[in-house]
Amino acid sequence: MSIATSVDEDLRHALAHPDDSEVAGLDAWWRANNYLTIGQIYLRANPLLREPLAPGHIKPRLLGHWGTSPGLSFVYAHVSRLIRRTGQQAIYLAGPGHGGPALVAAGYLEGTYSATYPAVPQDENGMLRLFRQFSSPGGIPSHVSVTTPGSIHEGGELGYVLVHAFGAVMDNPDLLAIAVVGDGEAETGPLEGSWKGVSFLNPARDGAVLPILHLNGAKIAGPTVLARKDPDEVRALLHGHGYDVIEVAGDDLPGMHHRFAAALAQAWGRIRDIQRAARSGSWDGSRPRWPLIVLRTPKGWTGPESVDGVTVTGTWRSHQVPLSGVRDNPAHLELLEKWLRSYRPEELFDSAGAPVPLVTSVNPEGDLRMSASPHANGGVLTRDLDLPDFRDYAVDVDAPARVRAESTRKLGELMRDVYTRNPDRFRLFCPDETNSNRLGAVFEVSDRAFMERTTADDVAVSRDGRVMEVLSEHNCHGWLEGYTLTGRHGMFATYEAFAMVSASQTVQHGKWLQEATRLPWRARVPSLNVLLTSTAWRNDHNGFSHQGPGLIQVVLTQRGDVARVYLPPDANCLLSVADHCLRSRSYINLIVIDKQPQLQWLTMDEAIAHTARGAGVWEWAGTDDGSTDPDIVLACAGDVVTMETVAAAQILRERLPALKVRVVNVVDLMTLVRPKDHPHGMSPTLFTELFTDSVDVVFAFHGYPGAIHQLVHGRPDADRFRVRGFIEEGTTTTPFDMTVRNRASRYHLVMDAINNARRLPRGAADLKAWCEAQLARHEQYVVEHLEDLPEVRDWALGDWATRG
Amino acid sequence: MSIATSVDEDLRHALAHPDDSEVAGLDAWWRANNYLTIGQIYLRANPLLREPLAPGHIKPRLLGHWGTSPGLSFVYAHVSRLIRRTGQQAIYLAGPGHGGPALVAAGYLEGTYSATYPAVPQDENGMLRLFRQFSSPGGIPSHVSVTTPGSIHEGGELGYVLVHAFGAVMDNPDLLAIAVVGDGEAETGPLEGSWKGVSFLNPARDGAVLPILHLNGAKIAGPTVLARKDPDEVRALLHGHGYDVIEVAGDDLPGMHHRFAAALAQAWGRIRDIQRAARSGSWDGSRPRWPLIVLRTPKGWTGPESVDGVTVTGTWRSHQVPLSGVRDNPAHLELLEKWLRSYRPEELFDSAGAPVPLVTSVNPEGDLRMSASPHANGGVLTRDLDLPDFRDYAVDVDAPARVRAESTRKLGELMRDVYTRNPDRFRLFCPDETNSNRLGAVFEVSDRAFMERTTADDVAVSRDGRVMEVLSEHNCHGWLEGYTLTGRHGMFATYEAFAMVSASQTVQHGKWLQEATRLPWRARVPSLNVLLTSTAWRNDHNGFSHQGPGLIQVVLTQRGDVARVYLPPDANCLLSVADHCLRSRSYINLIVIDKQPQLQWLTMDEAIAHTARGAGVWEWAGTDDGSTDPDIVLACAGDVVTMETVAAAQILRERLPALKVRVVNVVDLMTLVRPKDHPHGMSPTLFTELFTDSVDVVFAFHGYPGAIHQLVHGRPDADRFRVRGFIEEGTTTTPFDMTVRNRASRYHLVMDAINNARRLPRGAADLKAWCEAQLARHEQYVVEHLEDLPEVRDWALGDWATRG
Repeated sequence: MSIATSVDEDLRHALAHPDDSEVAGLDAWWRANNYLTIGQIYLRANPLLREPLAPGHIKPRLLGHWGTSPGLSFVYAHVSRLIRRTGQQAIYLAGPGHGGPALVAAGYLEGTYSATYPAVPQDENGMLRLFRQFSSPGGIPSHVSVTTPGSIHEGGELGYVLVHAFGAVMDNPDLLAIAVVGDGEAETGPLEGSWKGVSFLNPARDGAVLPILHLNGAKIAGPTVLARKDPDEVRALLHGHGYDVIEVAGDDLPGMHHRFAAALAQAWGRIRDIQRAARSGSWDGSRPRWPLIVLRTPKGWTGPESVDGVTVTGTWRSHQVPLSGVRDNPAHLELLEKWLRSYRPEELFDSAGAPVPLVTSVNPEGDLRMSASPHANGGVLTRDLDLPDFRDYAVDVDAPARVRAESTRKLGELMRDVYTRNPDRFRLFCPDETNSNRLGAVFEVSDRAFMERTTADDVAVSRDGRVMEVLSEHNCHGWLEGYTLTGRHGMFATYEAFAMVSASQTVQHGKWLQEATRLPWRARVPSLNVLLTSTAWRNDHNGFSHQGPGLIQVVLTQRGDVARVYLPPDANCLLSVADHCLRSRSYINLIVIDKQPQLQWLTMDEAIAHTARGAGVWEWAGTDDGSTDPDIVLACAGDVVTMETVAAAQILRERLPALKVRVVNVVDLMTLVRPKDHPHGMSPTLFTELFTDSVDVVFAFHGYPGAIHQLVHGRPDADRFRVRGFIEEGTTTTPFDMTVRNRASRYHLVMDAINNARRLPRGAADLKAWCEAQLARHEQYVVEHLEDLPEVRDWALGDWATRG
Repeated sequence: MSIATSVDEDLRHALAHPDDSEVAGLDAWWRANNYLTIGQIYLRANPLLREPLAPGHIKPRLLGHWGTSPGLSFVYAHVSRLIRRTGQQAIYLAGPGHGGPALVAAGYLEGTYSATYPAVPQDENGMLRLFRQFSSPGGIPSHVSVTTPGSIHEGGELGYVLVHAFGAVMDNPDLLAIAVVGDGEAETGPLEGSWKGVSFLNPARDGAVLPILHLNGAKIAGPTVLARKDPDEVRALLHGHGYDVIEVAGDDLPGMHHRFAAALAQAWGRIRDIQRAARSGSWDGSRPRWPLIVLRTPKGWTGPESVDGVTVTGTWRSHQVPLSGVRDNPAHLELLEKWLRSYRPEELFDSAGAPVPLVTSVNPEGDLRMSASPHANGGVLTRDLDLPDFRDYAVDVDAPARVRAESTRKLGELMRDVYTRNPDRFRLFCPDETNSNRLGAVFEVSDRAFMERTTADDVAVSRDGRVMEVLSEHNCHGWLEGYTLTGRHGMFATYEAFAMVSASQTVQHGKWLQEATRLPWRARVPSLNVLLTSTAWRNDHNGFSHQGPGLIQVVLTQRGDVARVYLPPDANCLLSVADHCLRSRSYINLIVIDKQPQLQWLTMDEAIAHTARGAGVWEWAGTDDGSTDPDIVLACAGDVVTMETVAAAQILRERLPALKVRVVNVVDLMTLVRPKDHPHGMSPTLFTELFTDSVDVVFAFHGYPGAIHQLVHGRPDADRFRVRGFIEEGTTTTPFDMTVRNRASRYHLVMDAINNARRLPRGAADLKAWCEAQLARHEQYVVEHLEDLPEVRDWALGDWATRG
């Protein structure tokens, strides 16, 4: 499909054939980077080796990772040259965990590091600072981190480099994401599962990912599977994933510079061909075979070949610090000096300590430097979503509990119009459940993205689709992370229980956002919005494995500057919450609501007021008539338990009318926390207004009860909160039966209210007995009726609502 | 490498060429299974279709999954035939999520279901019960679950079928695990990452896994990547993973029976060849190319081709219930009846409703029936470990805080000897960190398992190794699950922060164990032991991404009959805890302790008493001299915070000696819970003995503070617990600095003690000021010294210990 012009051909030829001066520059930049990398690991003084290396110049404790670094910087240098020659916008994602020093050194050589951190200038003092801060308290870690300019990918938890890269280039047609995949991380499940990104990447509309599988042979302590497999198998594997495999192997110099330059030129040319064809209309629509480079170099390349007679370079021994005990072992000290001097620092840095022009000549200009790319600081590129008025999607609510609606269906309609208004910066990510989650309205305006073969029976599936469905929570979550970190917006919608599959990604992205919030140069990015549906309480034909509200627990561990948890009780609250989340920046917004038809409580105006406050008294549901001293507070957070709470309040109103019951609904879980622990935390005054200071609170919660216990800790007399929630009693059954099994049904709540009320009117004992009888009746009904669950359901959820 | 005998050749030939009567049996069994599957989804009466189908026979709500079922039962029938002909021991793992009805029907046809559940006999009533219980309250779910005889694999959260299969056959040389991989689940990361199991499977010592990749084309609502890829790519992919691909495709009958029988015979023959060669010594040691079958059949095969003019079979529309509204739509009712009768039930079940001999002739005998395999109820095969006396590995402790040791190194020595004594039933699983975690003593007696090429520079890597290292928490966790569910023992050791990668597996396995505990026929299996090291507090050169104690939070959500969390403060406690865990059954045992040198507190005798009790007063550390009314209680759980607590107590002893301080250490976190919520929960009396009823408790906790708040909820005046713990303040720094950043340092604890003590002696204000000064000094030190962290560390951890 080559439609390259002759100018283009000349450029490609030049790219593939660097002349001697170019190779000299590449090699100098690379040597400078390696020198700076080793300096970070070892040196606390004498950074330019102006004097012979002495024990006092060596850090007291040697920490850091050498092994993967020279490969990372080698690739970086060559991509920089590509950028200079072509003007290609690119970002660099370092998959191997501990390539931190090489990427920091790259930013330093490009001048970005000093611009970002003026305390680390390009001179001798700055170099010393660069060295000393590494792996030190208050300094920087040995892996690429949030503090590294040009990074959108933390080299901590392994496996996500490709998902981040694919997410970054979606709707980002001019961007090339260079994704270096380590052979250690290539063993992880998430990484293996992420090669398939090409099956969802549209060359006309999206940018490109160039994976570089770096097989250096070893991980921390042993060999890697891919490095030791027959190379034929590795080729077959990657071919099977859909790639065009280009291979470069060796450690000879300058030969490797020539061969890698040629490989990179070939890959880039291929990418350009694919993109030009797709964008010029001469594309048959089939999935392109994108290029991929397999790079085989020795682990710790250019490091000491052997130490104390044992091979180091090329083995796992070079993973961290190849030379240990340097302060006390003169032979090791000598070896280190020889190693450092092998890069000829005097040719690389001038007398002031700044990199010389031969080195800096490799750097691209301005924002094209990968360490300075605005794509890697996506907040600066973020344009707010053009959002429709969420009130237009409201469910008409005359009075509470009159109407049933599938709340998420309304959100789907809103998202449909968000898609229409923002064709370049919003996507929904979902593991094959968009319709199941009642969000299918989006398919009125966008198909599912799919680059493999389609058939006549497919519905809403095409290469032009922008709804991302893949049966992989890891891909969905990771793509959304990459998408938002580069400045676009989205939502990840998934089944509540299986949100735990990607819980570690939620944790890690939360950590990224927490750390970024403290770096003034990192502009705030769109929030990571996670919608959980198909909740623990309503799983119908699914069993216990599908019932688990664990992600709430996980998000609660994050700091208050990032974590947000919303439990809208109905559609209008959901719409208001979603609007807020889609406008927000740099949060993890967790929204939990079921997809099944559910009773609607609030008008849109009420919902807006309620969600803005985050929690409030539902006076119409209670019987305390605004008094300041109810006998009991019934609180709730979450849709099903809200229904049970309102039902319990109704039972009490009808059967024990003298009991003053206050009903409080909580939408924004973080309002429960003390203000010093979370910015959404209610003031003490407001907390007392809602919950009093001393009246017992029966709290029906969607998730594990312990969550509420920990949230209200420190509030006045927190012991008075009696929490009902999901206590790991699950099975195939109705929502109402689930509330019974977990002791959170309306009858349990009524009995709790009676057991804990400050003051009991006559008739309370009878009502308790009546509740017991209702529960017994339910048990009997379940036993007798087996498959007739709809009747159970309707009986359980229906009869009181008609009287509401 | 064929060394087959001629008898063997005959058998193979016969296997590959079923005669007409065999095909008739296979087809009858399959039809019976399909009939029972559809019955489960649709029927509440008239199970044998003795009368024309009427609306009243149809369930009021249609739930369940048809799409994957016919493929699963087709394979099942053929494997049963293989077993009958060969005597091969096999278990069946159904990866596709919702094949529940087919597997339940298989057990029913084999008689196992009725033997397990006498309420569901092989007669008309039993069949009705089978149908009615499906997807009903108190019944069974639509996916394979714990209640399904013959299963070790819950079809809930997708992606783990191969890890379970590989774990099941390790050290299980006679077992064949048939692992059907759905093309939906094949999109998940964990599944993609688990094909590489063959790179760790030793044919001489381990059994075999036969993966059957079932490409039926669709998942819930759309096409799958593997089904729509060019078949060449699928072949390349699987070849690249190391398999010998055998393909069967179509929907013609009886042709498919013949072709699948031939494929299965070929696969089994190949497995036998590999095993015989390996076991007879004629193996060159290279990784065999294990067979794998790619089976392409239409989704919903044998179901209604189209409904209302829309194609159903072969599309996503057959995923769940292909015919809806059957009660109200006479055309659909007619179609359902026609569909059910297409299997000719009158030929399959006798007048009483039992399967006829033509059907049951396919069933293997006794325990060879896959639904009756003892391997799938591993507790019945479990032999306790032959454990050395853990006291032999004790660290000598004369007095608290005199000795430092790497506690996990002692555990490694214990495990080394567990390996030696139990060469067939114990393995350690670890993502490439065995040495890093100081467990390397195991390499004295076992290498790492590795079937790919090894080199001279490899250390402790060989095909005979039984230490399982792969850089995939998913593989490690899942292999251990499969290993324990089939009755063997093991431990998963991993970095604390990255334990969240497999948190969903911990959750799902916990759910399995919780549910199994309630099924009397499921014998208790060895516990899942998880050791977390490299904890949040001691990550040296790693940064914030490596710091997260989240898995504790996750395990706390499990029920008390399964969840166990231990925080041993030193080596002797760790040994005692580990011994207990290795003897236990059916728990999730989470053990958290760091790997770095740490102060040792207790003699072995003290450690045994302390861990048996789970929590206790450390009188030597406090100053309340056994009085019942201390002024403050300093409690702690976790190694680093224990050190800070003891240090705080020492500061108070020295500088505020009149303050009565009690020090309580908690090893078994669950002792804090009320006895009604956890069997380890301390009695109220004991709780009061330790914590009093009213004195404030300053609790230094290893994990997130909220965990303690939720655990002590309901204890007397729980509000008095002031918890310090990990509050998401992380970076590259020393352990001591971590405690400062998280406000859990000895100085913070002293100030907390002063702020909350019942009674304050003179000098308290001065001591608070001194603490502030110490913290200021620390801040200054960090700022000034940057990379000199060892000094910071030694200063921080050392100075008081020498006076201890």
